[in-house]
Amino acid sequence: MQPLQNDRLIRALLRQPVDVTPVWMMRQAGRYLPEYLKVRKQAGSFMDLCTNPELACEVTMQPLERFPLDAAILFSDILTIPDAMGLGLYFETGEGPRFKKPVRTAADVNALGVPDPETELRYVMDAVRLIRRTLDNRLPLIGFSGSPWTLATYMVEGSSTKTFSHVKGMLYSEPQLLHRMLDTVARSVTGYLNAQIAAGAQAVMIFDTWGGVLTPDDYRDFSLQYMQQIVSGLTREADGLQVPVVLFTKGGCQWLEAMADTGADALGIDWSTDLAMARKRVGDRVALQGNLDPAVLYAPPDIIREKVAEVLARFGKGSGHVFNLGHGITPDVDPENAGALVNAVHELSAQYHQ
Amino acid sequence: MQPLQNDRLIRALLRQPVDVTPVWMMRQAGRYLPEYLKVRKQAGSFMDLCTNPELACEVTMQPLERFPLDAAILFSDILTIPDAMGLGLYFETGEGPRFKKPVRTAADVNALGVPDPETELRYVMDAVRLIRRTLDNRLPLIGFSGSPWTLATYMVEGSSTKTFSHVKGMLYSEPQLLHRMLDTVARSVTGYLNAQIAAGAQAVMIFDTWGGVLTPDDYRDFSLQYMQQIVSGLTREADGLQVPVVLFTKGGCQWLEAMADTGADALGIDWSTDLAMARKRVGDRVALQGNLDPAVLYAPPDIIREKVAEVLARFGKGSGHVFNLGHGITPDVDPENAGALVNAVHELSAQYHQ
Repeated sequence: MQPLQNDRLIRALLRQPVDVTPVWMMRQAGRYLPEYLKVRKQAGSFMDLCTNPELACEVTMQPLERFPLDAAILFSDILTIPDAMGLGLYFETGEGPRFKKPVRTAADVNALGVPDPETELRYVMDAVRLIRRTLDNRLPLIGFSGSPWTLATYMVEGSSTKTFSHVKGMLYSEPQLLHRMLDTVARSVTGYLNAQIAAGAQAVMIFDTWGGVLTPDDYRDFSLQYMQQIVSGLTREADGLQVPVVLFTKGGCQWLEAMADTGADALGIDWSTDLAMARKRVGDRVALQGNLDPAVLYAPPDIIREKVAEVLARFGKGSGHVFNLGHGITPDVDPENAGALVNAVHELSAQYHQ
Repeated sequence: MQPLQNDRLIRALLRQPVDVTPVWMMRQAGRYLPEYLKVRKQAGSFMDLCTNPELACEVTMQPLERFPLDAAILFSDILTIPDAMGLGLYFETGEGPRFKKPVRTAADVNALGVPDPETELRYVMDAVRLIRRTLDNRLPLIGFSGSPWTLATYMVEGSSTKTFSHVKGMLYSEPQLLHRMLDTVARSVTGYLNAQIAAGAQAVMIFDTWGGVLTPDDYRDFSLQYMQQIVSGLTREADGLQVPVVLFTKGGCQWLEAMADTGADALGIDWSTDLAMARKRVGDRVALQGNLDPAVLYAPPDIIREKVAEVLARFGKGSGHVFNLGHGITPDVDPENAGALVNAVHELSAQYHQ
């Protein structure tokens, strides 16, 4: 097997020395790129794009052609698992994701099975294999999944929500039912991520988009516990190389110490936390990924450069930092500004790796 | 002047001894009450309700007739100030608030004046006076305002937002312009709250709904600094009694120490933070108000009671706790469940005040 030509991401996630800080952006393949919008239109629906390995590969590669990013991330959606469970995922224009059959009762929970990734989610694994072939070892490929709690919020609500009334109703009124559901989802995520690793993913990330809406106790019991279960069940090596695992709970910065104790290699950090403080709190247990406010990309390139410099200075000297936004890049950003970010990270970070 | 018949709220906010923990609920006058919906319909638009002192008084009193709450809170909207500045507030059904004239340019900022509360916002002061007369010293009345940063987000965006692209664009690209705007808004809020106090508000609360979307540095510079300016400018006494000030930044629990240093009497705490930890962090500088997850009200009364007991135990013995939700009560809650919360707080808290 050929070695990776650019292995900065993997090395930084494992806290090994690098020449400059690696950088990628959450949602780097997405709506801010006109070439993405073109393929998206051509594909038909959003799910038509996700389920077509050739088109998923094409949009995965798009930002890499524009910017000297240090990683590719699989283009997909976090809701592929509940869709494969038979809940009937669809997208209403401007409304976000919906499920035809939300999970509300014990019978609904009992009916949930663990999807076989190489059959029901084969389109994802085919995309991973195709992207790996296309990347040809130039850059590492990141695979991902939603966290069990985050997937459960959509599965129970049946749509996006501001109040989380159904899933929190279940959490407070029937906690054991929700635990059963989360266990099934966690086993599904473990199998799904292991299949992505077998298909070629060289690092994996678990997105806990909604962990931050929980109380500290409920976060531990209903979100972190199941991410821990996944981390413990993952194949952490492929082709003789370590496969780092990144956990990201948006709004979860109060709980970094507990997240670091899961055995994950790295934590995603949103922009509400000072990276110097975060590093101090987790010590040398994990690498950190983040944490520029995505809204900085609304400012002109010279200001983006200043703000990049601030984030780099906050992390300081040494490896263990993967530069990223604190959340996904927003659709109304000028692609030039994303390029300014990537260049600034490489140009300004060498001093921290001498 | 007659003394307050129930002064638990004021005493707890000032960390003086009480017999039981006082309780009120953010948005206690609101859509979960059928009697509110009736008046709301009768009024016409939401702003027709806010600008009619008799109807605003009527809905302020509604929850007090149902539940043994320890405080009334003025029924109004945080966006009355920008409306009085001439931005043209209106509400689209299901869309949240909008402004006809958002503030985007230096000319827009320069055109902003500080409204005179007794003329442009007289309807609010008339409502305060009428509610005080109607309460007849049975319970204290809480006045309130949005924080300058929170008001600025709506004023610059012109509507609700998920990305805060315009206001953060201004923050990063033209920080001095935003500072000028925030200073004008802070002076307006100070005058507005002082007028509410003069009209009869016995405690005031500043709602910083969107402070949590800022980075730690930007929170300090663009939100906390202006709340500090307001706290320093408030009349903290009326009729020989102290008027406590409460600061609440949703998602701001990482910054409690800095908030406590503003000189406010109390901090609102959302449900993402353990109240025992919050108390330990702020020490005896401030009282704490919160912090039950509003979604607990989707559970049946026996579970609500258990969760109330947990919050009370977290705060522990002694005064300085005002029980509240961690955010506003949601429209789809059964009013019976709100009643279960209020009763549980009074019944279960006496043991902490012996």
